[in-house]
Amino acid sequence: MSATLKDVAQRAGVSTSAVSRTFTDGASVSAKMRQKVEKAASELGYQPNFLARSLTTRRTKLIGLVSNNFHNPIFLEVFDLFTRGLQDRGLRPLLVNLSNETDPEQSVQMLHQYSVDGVVVASSTLPPAFSKAFRDRGMAVVNTFGRYSSSPQVHVVGIDNAEAGRMAATELMARGYRSVAFLGGPEAATSTQDRLKGFREVLANHPDVTVTHSFAEAYSFQAGRTEMLRLAKAPLAEAYFCGDDVLSIGALSALRDVGKRVPEDVGVIGFNDMEMSGWENIALTTIRQPIKQIVNSSVELMAAMLDEPDRYPEARLFPCHVVDRSTLRPKV
Amino acid sequence: MSATLKDVAQRAGVSTSAVSRTFTDGASVSAKMRQKVEKAASELGYQPNFLARSLTTRRTKLIGLVSNNFHNPIFLEVFDLFTRGLQDRGLRPLLVNLSNETDPEQSVQMLHQYSVDGVVVASSTLPPAFSKAFRDRGMAVVNTFGRYSSSPQVHVVGIDNAEAGRMAATELMARGYRSVAFLGGPEAATSTQDRLKGFREVLANHPDVTVTHSFAEAYSFQAGRTEMLRLAKAPLAEAYFCGDDVLSIGALSALRDVGKRVPEDVGVIGFNDMEMSGWENIALTTIRQPIKQIVNSSVELMAAMLDEPDRYPEARLFPCHVVDRSTLRPKV
Repeated sequence: MSATLKDVAQRAGVSTSAVSRTFTDGASVSAKMRQKVEKAASELGYQPNFLARSLTTRRTKLIGLVSNNFHNPIFLEVFDLFTRGLQDRGLRPLLVNLSNETDPEQSVQMLHQYSVDGVVVASSTLPPAFSKAFRDRGMAVVNTFGRYSSSPQVHVVGIDNAEAGRMAATELMARGYRSVAFLGGPEAATSTQDRLKGFREVLANHPDVTVTHSFAEAYSFQAGRTEMLRLAKAPLAEAYFCGDDVLSIGALSALRDVGKRVPEDVGVIGFNDMEMSGWENIALTTIRQPIKQIVNSSVELMAAMLDEPDRYPEARLFPCHVVDRSTLRPKV
Repeated sequence: MSATLKDVAQRAGVSTSAVSRTFTDGASVSAKMRQKVEKAASELGYQPNFLARSLTTRRTKLIGLVSNNFHNPIFLEVFDLFTRGLQDRGLRPLLVNLSNETDPEQSVQMLHQYSVDGVVVASSTLPPAFSKAFRDRGMAVVNTFGRYSSSPQVHVVGIDNAEAGRMAATELMARGYRSVAFLGGPEAATSTQDRLKGFREVLANHPDVTVTHSFAEAYSFQAGRTEMLRLAKAPLAEAYFCGDDVLSIGALSALRDVGKRVPEDVGVIGFNDMEMSGWENIALTTIRQPIKQIVNSSVELMAAMLDEPDRYPEARLFPCHVVDRSTLRPKV
């Protein structure tokens, strides 16, 4: 069926090793030789088999793309950017769905069986043990949306979540709210822990402002809705900083159901600025996380790791900013 | 680093071929031998390398999961279901992003390099030439959301789109609308062509009803919004059947901008019933396509193809139904 390396060597009148070198990144081959081989390969419709080749190069160019939340629309943008970015570098994403997965060892085996060159863990809710387990098995690891640490164990690309919490609190104070609350994502998520920490830090300087917090079960519409319906059984705060946009939209739907107007009765500020937060039907005031820069930087870092496996782990953090739409009252 | 097949053979005191058979689906090996090998493998932490093994079995268990639209939230549900379904069968999805791709040959090469066992084309907008090109290179192909044909060239799993168009028209007639329109997806998409065909078939029996149609540039929020803003420069129809839900939501945002109330001034019915159409903030009346059944059936068919490559191509169609929420006026 398909032409083999041997066929190409014969047609070009060169050794199989010369053909192999021509199709190996960075291998030495003269321009003349390359031309001969490429001509023969093109005439025969030869394509190198990455997987067969991986047995000698020990490189599959497969990258595990790990996610554990397929109910948050932000991940569609994330997958789009990752697949394009990896493809542009000749890398291929093996999509791994770890929803409800609690045992890192199983995931390690799954990725190990496919000899992935690296793993992108695109999650702030998967326990850090997963990233560490991948790294311990010798895979290059980038934890996108992971927790910033001054001495990271794996590469982390994302934002400073505590700073995001401070930004939300500062924004609510600028708008004159006197009782505010954090409606977080899952309590175990590092992103939620850090946003809450930053939020409270700023509000500690406003002793006259009432501050409360609670957690939704997941970063999802239903979880945000359920938690806001629960909160609405008691008097509500004047404004809520929600763990992310999809939670915010769930909270908005609950507020509508209990007859509260937004922003007249209750204010809401989200986090992420996913595509649909800008949809006119939703028009959520939120804090924008620069997803594109974060994903592109993650891909860049992964590619760099493949060339230089012992690269020292780093944290790359990007700034966020408030996007004002319709769910907070104007500044005072 | 990792234990090899040879290490396991030595420790178990058996031949390497016995170890290999133990880890090959369907290969003959005695219970006693299997026990010995599995004990040694577990003690050494040995895991068979699927890719190395694929050189002899000619099976990589990699399945290309091809999409060309990452701006339609329905695909997050689709990816979730596909990754779970494939993982449950020991198969692994290689996610392939063909947004803006027009040349099947490039995509064929990309998948061929990874020796994928099969390809799921999850799209109604990618030209049929792609599915055929994959099939012609010997890959098992399932076109999920593809066009039904009485003599399919590849497996097709989805719905009868003409019937969906008839269903939408019948629903609008039952609600007494006298001027109706189809705001389709891209004109080249088979799903849009077939939905329009069915829609017009029913309305041909209602000569007193005004029927128009136009097309959005993509199945996306922005495309639906742009097209509805354009339409609103002239008098609008009483009700629109939009190509899908995300288009509908874009159209709803445009109607709101031009001061039209839904459903009082203009009615909208969508298609898909994606998760967020049920969000209380949106509450779109739509036609539900049974995504879960369609995806699970696609995975089933792919798994069956791997066991029986010469399986005759079939079309599996699932029924749709209307989900009544808030964007059409009540039945007369």
